[in-house]
Amino acid sequence: MSTEQDTSAESIEARHQAKMIKTKAAVDARIAAADTDCGVLLVITGPGKAKSSSAFGMVARSLGHGMKVGVVQFIKGATPTGEERFYRRFPDEVEYHVTGEGFTWETQNRARDIERAEAGWNIARGLLQREDVGLVVLDELNIVLAKEYLNTASVLADIAARPSMQHVVVTGRGAPPELIDLAHTVSEVKVVKHAFKQGIRAQAGLEY
Amino acid sequence: MSTEQDTSAESIEARHQAKMIKTKAAVDARIAAADTDCGVLLVITGPGKAKSSSAFGMVARSLGHGMKVGVVQFIKGATPTGEERFYRRFPDEVEYHVTGEGFTWETQNRARDIERAEAGWNIARGLLQREDVGLVVLDELNIVLAKEYLNTASVLADIAARPSMQHVVVTGRGAPPELIDLAHTVSEVKVVKHAFKQGIRAQAGLEY
Repeated sequence: MSTEQDTSAESIEARHQAKMIKTKAAVDARIAAADTDCGVLLVITGPGKAKSSSAFGMVARSLGHGMKVGVVQFIKGATPTGEERFYRRFPDEVEYHVTGEGFTWETQNRARDIERAEAGWNIARGLLQREDVGLVVLDELNIVLAKEYLNTASVLADIAARPSMQHVVVTGRGAPPELIDLAHTVSEVKVVKHAFKQGIRAQAGLEY
Repeated sequence: MSTEQDTSAESIEARHQAKMIKTKAAVDARIAAADTDCGVLLVITGPGKAKSSSAFGMVARSLGHGMKVGVVQFIKGATPTGEERFYRRFPDEVEYHVTGEGFTWETQNRARDIERAEAGWNIARGLLQREDVGLVVLDELNIVLAKEYLNTASVLADIAARPSMQHVVVTGRGAPPELIDLAHTVSEVKVVKHAFKQGIRAQAGLEY
């Protein structure tokens, strides 16, 4: 009896099918074990590229399911972005708020940055109380929390008190540990390499 | 002379401003050094959540800048997604192709999976030759390459031969090293925690 595997096309296909039947059983069991629906708190942090863009992809997904979406952009605001211009086309479906005035090294005014963060949070709190809003994006909120421009405990209390089926996506580097504790899903985006370091500037459509 | 810092509001603000002026000079220098525009190849890989959603956020960004977008979804296709339903609203701006038939453990047919991958690549190659398409999304292509359903060298040759200003975003776990070498920007998404493991199933608007 040979231990070599039969390499005919039929045999490869048969082994593939047998393996996939086993995999499907395992996957189906895991799916059956996860049977709860609820409003998910998702945090996307880390230094790599894919954080805000991911949140704006979930806006598209939610709109595709007929949900209403609220967006609050912290920090950003000095320059108009493609995502803002695009989603403002749908004022009945997306409430879009840009509350920042640029990066801290651009504004160079801490008191003003804090004032803008507080104004942004007042808008966010309103969205977090609305039963008709299925997804709330809090873009770059992590940065505002890491800089202590807002009180993390009171921000988390507002997020925790939202309608039970409302999803929240928080983006930005440096997510505070208390937010990670509260979240259901947390992804950390690492930089493997970046175009900027190769002399390529931020590109419309990709970076903004 | 005391080494204690003055903690008056004016002094905190003045120190903040001085620090931010220095930071801005450093950031501005880095921005000035990155002065090239080109079509960027961006790869988003790793096991965490934010990969496909990030690509679909860049679709929104690109549309906001008036660009045309092509999407080819590999693997996925068994169930309709929010992103597909939403972006199909804009047939003049987005060419949307779903070429997969579901995960490998669902199809359980390797020959058929390969056939679908090849059909998908024929569509992708066409998009990669079009000067009027500013962004091409190749969703879950990494999986197809990792499984060797397509020839990586010939896929990379087609990507490399695209119009000089066309951006390409490739998503999926297990990006092959040759693709990482060719890419300008590569992000790796790690799982810190996931709702699924807490018994919460995939949610419309977030996961699909």
